[in-house]
Amino acid sequence: MANITKKVSWSSRGDDSALTGEGTPLLNGTEIPKPSRQVSMSLDYDNIENQLFLEEERRMSHMGFRCLEISRWVICGLIGILTGLIACFIDIMVEKLAGYKYQVIKENIEKFTEVGGLSISLILWAVLNCAFVLVGGVMVAFFEPIAAGSGIPQIKCYLNGVKIPRVVRLKTLVVKVIGVICSVAGGLAVGKEGPMIHSGAVVAAGVSQGRSTSLKRDFKMFEYFRRDTEKRDFVSAGAAAGVSAAFGAPVGGVLFSLEEGASFWNQMLTWRIFFASMISTFTLNFFLSIYHGKPGDLSNPGLINFGRFESDSVAYYYYEIPLFMCMGALGGLLGALFNSLNYWLTIFRIRYVHRPCLQVIEALLVAAVTAAVSFTMIYFSNDCQPLGPEHNEEYPLQLFCADGEYNAMATAFFNTPERSVRSLFHNQPGSYNPLTLGLFTLTYFFLACWTYGLAVSAGVFIPSLLIGAAWGRLCGILLASFTPTSPIWADPGKYALIGAAAQLGGIVRMTLSLTVIMVEATGNVTYGLPIMLVLMIAKIVGDYFQEGLYDIHIKLQSVPFLHWEAPATSHWLTAREVMSSPVTCFNRIEKVGTIVDVLSNTSTNHNGFPVVVQPAKLCGLILRSQLIVLLKHKVFVELARSRLSQRKLQLKDFRDAYPRFPPIQSIHVSQDERECMMDLTEFMNPTPYTVPQDTSLPRVFKLFRALGLRHLVVADDVNRVIGLVTRKDLARYHLGKHGLEELQLAQT
Amino acid sequence: MANITKKVSWSSRGDDSALTGEGTPLLNGTEIPKPSRQVSMSLDYDNIENQLFLEEERRMSHMGFRCLEISRWVICGLIGILTGLIACFIDIMVEKLAGYKYQVIKENIEKFTEVGGLSISLILWAVLNCAFVLVGGVMVAFFEPIAAGSGIPQIKCYLNGVKIPRVVRLKTLVVKVIGVICSVAGGLAVGKEGPMIHSGAVVAAGVSQGRSTSLKRDFKMFEYFRRDTEKRDFVSAGAAAGVSAAFGAPVGGVLFSLEEGASFWNQMLTWRIFFASMISTFTLNFFLSIYHGKPGDLSNPGLINFGRFESDSVAYYYYEIPLFMCMGALGGLLGALFNSLNYWLTIFRIRYVHRPCLQVIEALLVAAVTAAVSFTMIYFSNDCQPLGPEHNEEYPLQLFCADGEYNAMATAFFNTPERSVRSLFHNQPGSYNPLTLGLFTLTYFFLACWTYGLAVSAGVFIPSLLIGAAWGRLCGILLASFTPTSPIWADPGKYALIGAAAQLGGIVRMTLSLTVIMVEATGNVTYGLPIMLVLMIAKIVGDYFQEGLYDIHIKLQSVPFLHWEAPATSHWLTAREVMSSPVTCFNRIEKVGTIVDVLSNTSTNHNGFPVVVQPAKLCGLILRSQLIVLLKHKVFVELARSRLSQRKLQLKDFRDAYPRFPPIQSIHVSQDERECMMDLTEFMNPTPYTVPQDTSLPRVFKLFRALGLRHLVVADDVNRVIGLVTRKDLARYHLGKHGLEELQLAQT
Repeated sequence: MANITKKVSWSSRGDDSALTGEGTPLLNGTEIPKPSRQVSMSLDYDNIENQLFLEEERRMSHMGFRCLEISRWVICGLIGILTGLIACFIDIMVEKLAGYKYQVIKENIEKFTEVGGLSISLILWAVLNCAFVLVGGVMVAFFEPIAAGSGIPQIKCYLNGVKIPRVVRLKTLVVKVIGVICSVAGGLAVGKEGPMIHSGAVVAAGVSQGRSTSLKRDFKMFEYFRRDTEKRDFVSAGAAAGVSAAFGAPVGGVLFSLEEGASFWNQMLTWRIFFASMISTFTLNFFLSIYHGKPGDLSNPGLINFGRFESDSVAYYYYEIPLFMCMGALGGLLGALFNSLNYWLTIFRIRYVHRPCLQVIEALLVAAVTAAVSFTMIYFSNDCQPLGPEHNEEYPLQLFCADGEYNAMATAFFNTPERSVRSLFHNQPGSYNPLTLGLFTLTYFFLACWTYGLAVSAGVFIPSLLIGAAWGRLCGILLASFTPTSPIWADPGKYALIGAAAQLGGIVRMTLSLTVIMVEATGNVTYGLPIMLVLMIAKIVGDYFQEGLYDIHIKLQSVPFLHWEAPATSHWLTAREVMSSPVTCFNRIEKVGTIVDVLSNTSTNHNGFPVVVQPAKLCGLILRSQLIVLLKHKVFVELARSRLSQRKLQLKDFRDAYPRFPPIQSIHVSQDERECMMDLTEFMNPTPYTVPQDTSLPRVFKLFRALGLRHLVVADDVNRVIGLVTRKDLARYHLGKHGLEELQLAQT
Repeated sequence: MANITKKVSWSSRGDDSALTGEGTPLLNGTEIPKPSRQVSMSLDYDNIENQLFLEEERRMSHMGFRCLEISRWVICGLIGILTGLIACFIDIMVEKLAGYKYQVIKENIEKFTEVGGLSISLILWAVLNCAFVLVGGVMVAFFEPIAAGSGIPQIKCYLNGVKIPRVVRLKTLVVKVIGVICSVAGGLAVGKEGPMIHSGAVVAAGVSQGRSTSLKRDFKMFEYFRRDTEKRDFVSAGAAAGVSAAFGAPVGGVLFSLEEGASFWNQMLTWRIFFASMISTFTLNFFLSIYHGKPGDLSNPGLINFGRFESDSVAYYYYEIPLFMCMGALGGLLGALFNSLNYWLTIFRIRYVHRPCLQVIEALLVAAVTAAVSFTMIYFSNDCQPLGPEHNEEYPLQLFCADGEYNAMATAFFNTPERSVRSLFHNQPGSYNPLTLGLFTLTYFFLACWTYGLAVSAGVFIPSLLIGAAWGRLCGILLASFTPTSPIWADPGKYALIGAAAQLGGIVRMTLSLTVIMVEATGNVTYGLPIMLVLMIAKIVGDYFQEGLYDIHIKLQSVPFLHWEAPATSHWLTAREVMSSPVTCFNRIEKVGTIVDVLSNTSTNHNGFPVVVQPAKLCGLILRSQLIVLLKHKVFVELARSRLSQRKLQLKDFRDAYPRFPPIQSIHVSQDERECMMDLTEFMNPTPYTVPQDTSLPRVFKLFRALGLRHLVVADDVNRVIGLVTRKDLARYHLGKHGLEELQLAQT
């Protein structure tokens, strides 16, 4: 029966909650120092329903609900507009700054090409890059470390129900936006698309609460939405709006949100998410079209625009599908390699590069090396291409080429990555020679791998696409050279597209949403099937060797992330084996001193407590946060004189405190007050979900996923509390290569 | 507190189940005779988990689960291929038959135009139409009435968890396919797209079970999937494949399935559904491209192809958006009118046209009238258009036009509806004059309204699109005529598109999936926002007056359909008020006679029974179907000598009986056997979900929706059974215009 093959002991059978020390999670048998500031917290989607809440709901009229519904739509519209504006701002800033930079360097190079002394150009390039990266790196490393990277793992966690602190704050947004502008303008091998998803999520979390705690402004709006369930729904909409703005893919955005976040599909919610996505693309397009001097031209969706693949000119044939599938496998392999390298690099960073100044120095080093490598590649390349009349290079570098020609390597390196991707997709056959592409793939692969995880705001989507497009185009060229007479493989652009999909799929392992994003970004439905097959194969091959990049980073933070289904072979586990036991319970009328002691006790860092009537019979569930608000407002009943609480607490008090509940240490309770009693009846959830102790793990898991639970009380056959299953209890079980494994999660 | 405004008594607080008589449901205060053969049954997505099942799961290895997973993919691939082939078959047959018909009539008309005597042509046309419709009508009315209509309401019910008998049988599929070919070739105002969804679902239900009960063949494959949960998942995939084949919209198909069916979003399932959709479009394209003599050209997705809207040539400007929104409102109004008319017509039909021969006669009448009206319209139209060099009319009718011209009315009427839609979208400006379009809209509106609900297989998508495209194009022409100098409104094609979306949205009230389907079918992402806005407005306006067409038809069948969320103002209702009580319970070891009596008793037509140990303490839940299998196999324990059951029942026995469990009447139990005992321990679900009696209705509802429950036991604080909430108990509550209403559902 006991087919757990690897069982690592865990020190605290703690809850899904609260404060963490410097843990030492074990992953793949390697001990990793815990990254600092990893205070994760679960979100609560269920246990809000107490008497106060029910009373409010019951008082609310039909019209009241309709007003709420309209507010939700208004908020989603606002989310879309703001996200679109942010995308627009980032796009214009990057274009301006990068344009300025490339212009300066281009002039400098042109000046020195003839007279010699190109090393000065190299230094200029490196210095400019470093200057940008310095600004971005300092902001991230010193002010808001959570803004580093693409933010997608953090948003995935948030939507899954694990809240990483400060992830949806205004400060994070500001740092993220400036950071991403700096890193893209600084010439790093990064994209600005991933951070858009994070930005959208922050916008959503802010707008939906009708206040900003950072700015200390409360607009007294949308107070109803100040709770985890509602906020999560809006954050999904924000993430979708972000994807939509980044890729011009509103449907892809919706699917991304659903793939990552939805446990319970709700039609109206999905429809609102779609609305936010649509508005976001529309806003971005509207303002960009004005900026580009073509107001009203709304046909240019997204920050990255792959350019349209016309089905007439770039058709594929069904016998090419096996070739595409081989490329998918290759993408999976390269993706797994990328992820493994990045995994070891990240562990190295956690261990040795955890001080902010070191992080900034590393970022500067990467910026300088990127400039140097790019320059070297361009310098030694002798791939000269004629500058055609319809060339669309923005900064064609002539360098050592003849007049009327330009350096092809420079189109790949001397450009923002977005433009390079588009060139690889759409430049005419013959624009690149195979050696250029091979060298470019090689260098860019390692640069991108080194860059991801730096203390800068940056996404991995575009670099992945770029690497894939490069080797994909290379494949196309090679295939064409084998059969020089056949016109079928004449256009290497489609191979670039397939390669890009394969590489991206191999790295991030997204499936459905990525297919739709790619289809929307290429504006061509016919490529749907090959892209889907390629992503599928890339995922299968990649998963064999290594997890997806985001999953790796989530795992390294050892958060209790719940996957879609319980591990397949976990049917023999029951709630009894999984639950935490014994559980700290409170009486319905409990002594204040007891409550304070339990909450202060760091060994019982639970977030939810069953409420019982003697003898141990379950009558409700109350949350740590609720108890803290109660203590703060001193809702005590004096001994002997019951039913004389000092003031009546309202739902508003809980909402005002949301989401930054003070720690228990900050609440002073006098010795007299400790002797008072607290009546929890009104504040607890009177009907928590329970399961009998024989319930199988998949059944418990399904309940958690489908209802967004955080705590599930295990009761015996006379309804006495015998245990509590938390999110972390479930997240421990994991299907490894050799069957069911039990992971140790940090004592968070 | 009691704010139920309308409470209609219901005669039997029955279960979500079993046999029905000729009920008299009250809807909108009107008494409607119950349509015959409306034996609806709930599907069970949860209570399968008994000891036998758990044992099997526990025995199964990691590899076993992987094999299952691979089988699921294989099945989805098969579903895609078969659905694609069926779509291909329908398409080719319709094209052949309709082509033949129009050719004959065209020749006949041409012959008689000059010599006079066009009434002969009219008769020929009417006779040909009637001949086709006769075949289709007889098949449907006499052999399989469930194959009538588009099948979408039935599939919606199935995915929602209500099974309408015979809806996924092979016979239904055959009748559906032949029926739809006949009705489209017969010139009715119908489409072949809706039935594709039903066909896909039937294919899925068949393939996934690895056997055909109709053909009495058991391939001994996929036995694991012989249960409601798994079958439902495959049926979603089938429906998606159907949408995908019909509209060339794989993503739209996935979203359709999710919108209608998913309560619990599962990533792998969605991904498989997407796979089935992709394969289905691909198969259809592959074979159609071969049929059309252009093998390998895969760029022509779907049965209906709206033709590509090039963003360059058919751009819209943002100041057109308010106009689009007005059209959306108009679509909503017209849709509500359509639905109201159809509602009254359907009630009329249920009351007076319920005999098969009458149904066939009505269908013939409609066919003849359609031919007559079309002919009259063409005859009296004097809208002659020059026959350009690039004209794409397949059957241009010259009639009384000058040489080199053709009758424009004939392009709309004398054609399959799919082609007419495309002509309205893409013909050059000036191809139609406003009067033609106005008359066409008017007549086609009433024809389509009359046709929907006939005893023929037919969809309402295409007629709706056609009506909308006609008045949309009319709007475009009128707008252009107001501002003759402005080139903006030069192309009425985009207005036709918007009108089509508005009309379809106003009738069916689908939202997200319809947007995506329209976007995919037009191949243009930029129209996403306007289409979405239009659909939204159409839905809001339409909902104000009347429900969606499918919802009307679902409601008329009075099935316990669960919507997405509990009615907003239902927080004051608790499980205690909602539940059925008292409940018939069984003891864990129960007398056979008692079981037989309970099952035979028509007044307790429950489908699930709590199992208790004395005194009334809940220990499990067992289903009617399981009891029937147990009785059939006579798994009895003789009195006095316990633990001596004649044979050990296995999971296989339950699977073999699935899904057509015999009625209790067919099982003979002798008087001796009645005295035996039955031990239910192994067969019951030992851990059914329970709720306390104070749980609010929204909470109960959420549990039902999220977990796909059918029975929920209400237990008191010592775990004694005090009631049972069934799907029907929840479906009764309904948010009307004046607050919460309690509907009467038929005694099904």
